[in-house]
Amino acid sequence: SVPSAYTSKSLTSKEERREFMSLFPDIVRDLTADPERILPDVERWFSKVLQYNVPGGKKNRGIATMTAYKSLASPGDLTPENLHLVHILGWCVEMMHTFFLIVDDIADGSELRRGKPSWYRVKDVGLRAINDAFMMEQGIYYLLRKYFRNKPYYVDIMELFHDCTIKTTVGQCLDLQSGRDEEGNIDLSSFTMDRYTKMVKYKTAYYSFYLPVALSMFAAGVQNPELLRQAKTILLEMGEFFQVQDDYLDCFGDPNITGKQGKDIEDGKCSWLAVVALQRGMAPQRAIMKEKYGRKDPACVERIKCMYEELRLPSVYEAYEEQTYRRIYQEIQQTSVGIPQAFLMKYMTKLYRRRE
Amino acid sequence: SVPSAYTSKSLTSKEERREFMSLFPDIVRDLTADPERILPDVERWFSKVLQYNVPGGKKNRGIATMTAYKSLASPGDLTPENLHLVHILGWCVEMMHTFFLIVDDIADGSELRRGKPSWYRVKDVGLRAINDAFMMEQGIYYLLRKYFRNKPYYVDIMELFHDCTIKTTVGQCLDLQSGRDEEGNIDLSSFTMDRYTKMVKYKTAYYSFYLPVALSMFAAGVQNPELLRQAKTILLEMGEFFQVQDDYLDCFGDPNITGKQGKDIEDGKCSWLAVVALQRGMAPQRAIMKEKYGRKDPACVERIKCMYEELRLPSVYEAYEEQTYRRIYQEIQQTSVGIPQAFLMKYMTKLYRRRE
Ligand SMILES: [Mg+2]
Ligand SMILES: [Mg+2]
Ligand SMILES: [Mg+2]
Ligand SMILES: [Mg+2]
Ligand SMILES: [Mg+2]
Ligand SMILES: [Mg+2]
Repeated sequence: SVPSAYTSKSLTSKEERREFMSLFPDIVRDLTADPERILPDVERWFSKVLQYNVPGGKKNRGIATMTAYKSLASPGDLTPENLHLVHILGWCVEMMHTFFLIVDDIADGSELRRGKPSWYRVKDVGLRAINDAFMMEQGIYYLLRKYFRNKPYYVDIMELFHDCTIKTTVGQCLDLQSGRDEEGNIDLSSFTMDRYTKMVKYKTAYYSFYLPVALSMFAAGVQNPELLRQAKTILLEMGEFFQVQDDYLDCFGDPNITGKQGKDIEDGKCSWLAVVALQRGMAPQRAIMKEKYGRKDPACVERIKCMYEELRLPSVYEAYEEQTYRRIYQEIQQTSVGIPQAFLMKYMTKLYRRRE
Repeated sequence: SVPSAYTSKSLTSKEERREFMSLFPDIVRDLTADPERILPDVERWFSKVLQYNVPGGKKNRGIATMTAYKSLASPGDLTPENLHLVHILGWCVEMMHTFFLIVDDIADGSELRRGKPSWYRVKDVGLRAINDAFMMEQGIYYLLRKYFRNKPYYVDIMELFHDCTIKTTVGQCLDLQSGRDEEGNIDLSSFTMDRYTKMVKYKTAYYSFYLPVALSMFAAGVQNPELLRQAKTILLEMGEFFQVQDDYLDCFGDPNITGKQGKDIEDGKCSWLAVVALQRGMAPQRAIMKEKYGRKDPACVERIKCMYEELRLPSVYEAYEEQTYRRIYQEIQQTSVGIPQAFLMKYMTKLYRRRE
């Protein structure tokens, strides 16, 4: 049966989060202390890049890597050495997330990230931030080489990082394409459900959902490509589910709970709500979208929100959430041995009806 | 004996260059036609990115990969299949060169590249160019996976590309550090020979000299790490030699032959001439450097050039070129079997006393 109660319990314990964080200084040391690889003047700079950007977020992706591994590995495999390796993989995922954020903030012209100035806005940084992003990306492969070179799954995880990186850049490319034309008008014809799901899958789901779990599977010795395909199908669906929720909460969430003031409407984002509004709306709603969507003016934002409510998008969303949750949960129940089933179930229960 | 006559003969025949170029459309097809990897909307865009940026240069690095291989491989190994693979490696090197140029032009604010607007300056591109650079970087690993997955040297060449990428970003980081302070003054204290040689080695020599030749060695089946170390030592020296020449020609070359108007002085670059001027100059010359170096004003540029001549830098350069050429040539003569000796000798003779 599919659990229906929302549980606010964290996926991981405070202790586990503390432990993950405690490894970060070692990661910085590894990435900056090799004089063959990095020069002393660069050492100080890159250490600053890592400290400023990597550890400040929620670290969900990194911690998921570890939690998924624990759910999958046999008790005898949960040695300190193996857990150490999985923590390193988790930090590699966090570094991947971070270098995409650094670059995304430049391309989007975003001023803030996690309550601090975006890296490129920091004094003396500017567009050097692009080179820093490349250095961070390459740091991943340095860590993989240092710690995993003799593992049978070394090539698999390298290829996995490559694959998820290209997928994310393809998603970003799609996202940047559905921008505004020269007059600053938004091209609503690109707001289709097909395009939306593709964009979300490529831009977010691969590296945020598939990558951590696939890494945990490789680390646990899973080699069967069929199992990876099974996991991928489910995780990409989870990533889409997560992003739809994110888009919904951006507009209808409680800022006191989400901790952020949504601005997808004024930014003219191709969000799930906008796509569904265009699907369900008739000529008048489409005219409102055309006229008011993507404008800074609070009255325009308010008009769009009203229209979303007129179209009953909150209940459309509720039905979507309910159905999708059940479907994915049941898919997870049917997975084979070798997939971190317990972790995925817990993860879905945690996501279901989330408000933050 | 060390040949002393400058030969203007190209390292490769016109036919070889034509052949290398003829493979480019296949590369574009490989990188854009896989719907699992790239979405149709992105396909068109990425194809444009590749066409605009990759093939327009001299392609020396890509062609060197092939020429070095031919110099090394036994006649029986020069099959169409093997040559095809080496051509692909050559294009991977060109892609690496290109994504660094795209990013370098953004960070330096350069308007032109190869006589056309820099990619980020093209209409509808802007800072999307950063994502394009990442897509291009990842294209390398896609090609390696597609064509080299079953080769015994697959991991070696993947690690080599990663290693050369990190080295280049470290060099770029160093380069960007030796910029101007807030008042726009150049920090001449960073213009030391030690820092210069490190910067050149990391920023240029690894990917422009070591990478193509190391690839050719792996493709020819060389596995002995000692041979790679030997080759690396020589190729990093060649890279430094090449860059010193480049810096010299920027100021003292004939624009009708080099095809470009030098601007290292007005840009305030940490060039070999500036470093040597500070080494050899006394207080008056240092004062001139401080006052006039890195200014747009043609009178300032002229004053620096005069000072370089007062310090007899052209003859210092000539002695450097002569000595370094001989030293490297002799090192090449002493290399072991497994290093593309004939290619390296020809390459050095080609570089010696170059005017373009
Ligand atoms: Mg953004
Ligand atoms: Mg963005
Ligand atoms: Mg959002
Ligand atoms: Mg530049
Ligand atoms: Mg530069
Ligand atoms: Mg130059």
